[in-house]
Amino acid sequence: MKLLALECSATAASAALCQEDKVVGEYFLSTGQTHSQTLLPMAEQLLATSGETLAGLDCLAVTTGPGSFTGLRIGIAAIKGMALGAGKPCVGVSTLEALAWNLRGFEGVATAVMDARCGQVYGALFALEEGGVSRLTPDAALTIDQLGELAGETQKPVFLVGDGALLCYNTLSEKLPGLRLAQPHLRLQRAASVGALALEKFRAGQAVDCGLLTPSYLRLPQAERELKKKQQEVSQP
Amino acid sequence: MKLLALECSATAASAALCQEDKVVGEYFLSTGQTHSQTLLPMAEQLLATSGETLAGLDCLAVTTGPGSFTGLRIGIAAIKGMALGAGKPCVGVSTLEALAWNLRGFEGVATAVMDARCGQVYGALFALEEGGVSRLTPDAALTIDQLGELAGETQKPVFLVGDGALLCYNTLSEKLPGLRLAQPHLRLQRAASVGALALEKFRAGQAVDCGLLTPSYLRLPQAERELKKKQQEVSQP
Repeated sequence: MKLLALECSATAASAALCQEDKVVGEYFLSTGQTHSQTLLPMAEQLLATSGETLAGLDCLAVTTGPGSFTGLRIGIAAIKGMALGAGKPCVGVSTLEALAWNLRGFEGVATAVMDARCGQVYGALFALEEGGVSRLTPDAALTIDQLGELAGETQKPVFLVGDGALLCYNTLSEKLPGLRLAQPHLRLQRAASVGALALEKFRAGQAVDCGLLTPSYLRLPQAERELKKKQQEVSQP
Repeated sequence: MKLLALECSATAASAALCQEDKVVGEYFLSTGQTHSQTLLPMAEQLLATSGETLAGLDCLAVTTGPGSFTGLRIGIAAIKGMALGAGKPCVGVSTLEALAWNLRGFEGVATAVMDARCGQVYGALFALEEGGVSRLTPDAALTIDQLGELAGETQKPVFLVGDGALLCYNTLSEKLPGLRLAQPHLRLQRAASVGALALEKFRAGQAVDCGLLTPSYLRLPQAERELKKKQQEVSQP
């Protein structure tokens, strides 16, 4: 069982080849360059350098959200294109669940959090036990205080992971002194974790045709939110 | 402070760009291909895709051992060549210490272990505390039982990490039931950990001219060991 996973839901981008529980290869970049420039070359170089082809893979995986609107569309469009061309099934995974998979092996609670801007974060909690990860709360758009309330309910060590982890740590660590920040090499989105989670979903029969892969934005784009607000102001003067 | 780190002491090979405590990019492959084919293309692609050049770096880093004789020579020769050409200082780090750095954030003891074949492993123990790593025992060529005795002396959780971790886990876990195996994505040598450790050494003034970078094999090559054995048999019939 072998797959290629792509991840570009935020500033970092990565591609990984996974086979069973092994990372065969991973290419990760966090340079601030646009994913439309880096993602496909990284996937292509990774396949070429490892002597692999799309035809030799069992499936293709990508994070479907939450995350940056543009990032998610670049990742999903790239995977859809490859899947359509090579005739392969796809597995879409939650960005937050894949982040929690970075912390496999720790014991406690992973609070996966991404910076959603405009005073919000995307967050979800996961139990970390005996090398496994299990979901405690659904992916949601929250204020940092709401996330802090969720994280404060457990008596176990709470690890913040994700591109919003430092922001939340700086805001919440006074209120929640037991809060821990995932180390830099485990903090950001990594395609190897996406691939490991996707392999589990593939084995559980959760692969789909690429046409069925859709992004999960959790909230409306900024332009639509502003339009809605204006329309409400007009209808309720 | 920015550096390029290379790692190819065993089957896996990787290159990483690190800046302060951040992983800017990492390219990892564990395909069984020879490092002389994969290492330099990986380093070149990583620099090119991230828009970086050797001239823009502060130093170059590599694991100097223990490890495969050929692997260490490929990695060190590559770094020496780049350092000489670009006029950059070098930092050499212990492969086992860099492996322990994979487990930053865990609490307990990291037992870093590589398969040295011929009934031996290369191993060393490190304390994992408050996100840091500190050495407990020197790098050594040991039998698995000797490593088990060292690991059995602590009351803290012991995490096996490295390409010899599974071998030792299978041999020792009955005797040492508290032994834990590092998760697959943290188990093998990674250039990002080499880079993070090397940045600390660079800041501590431990960078050297490339001419002073030498491999640390810990034991004689197989051919020399066999010659020595034969010479002893001749002198003591």
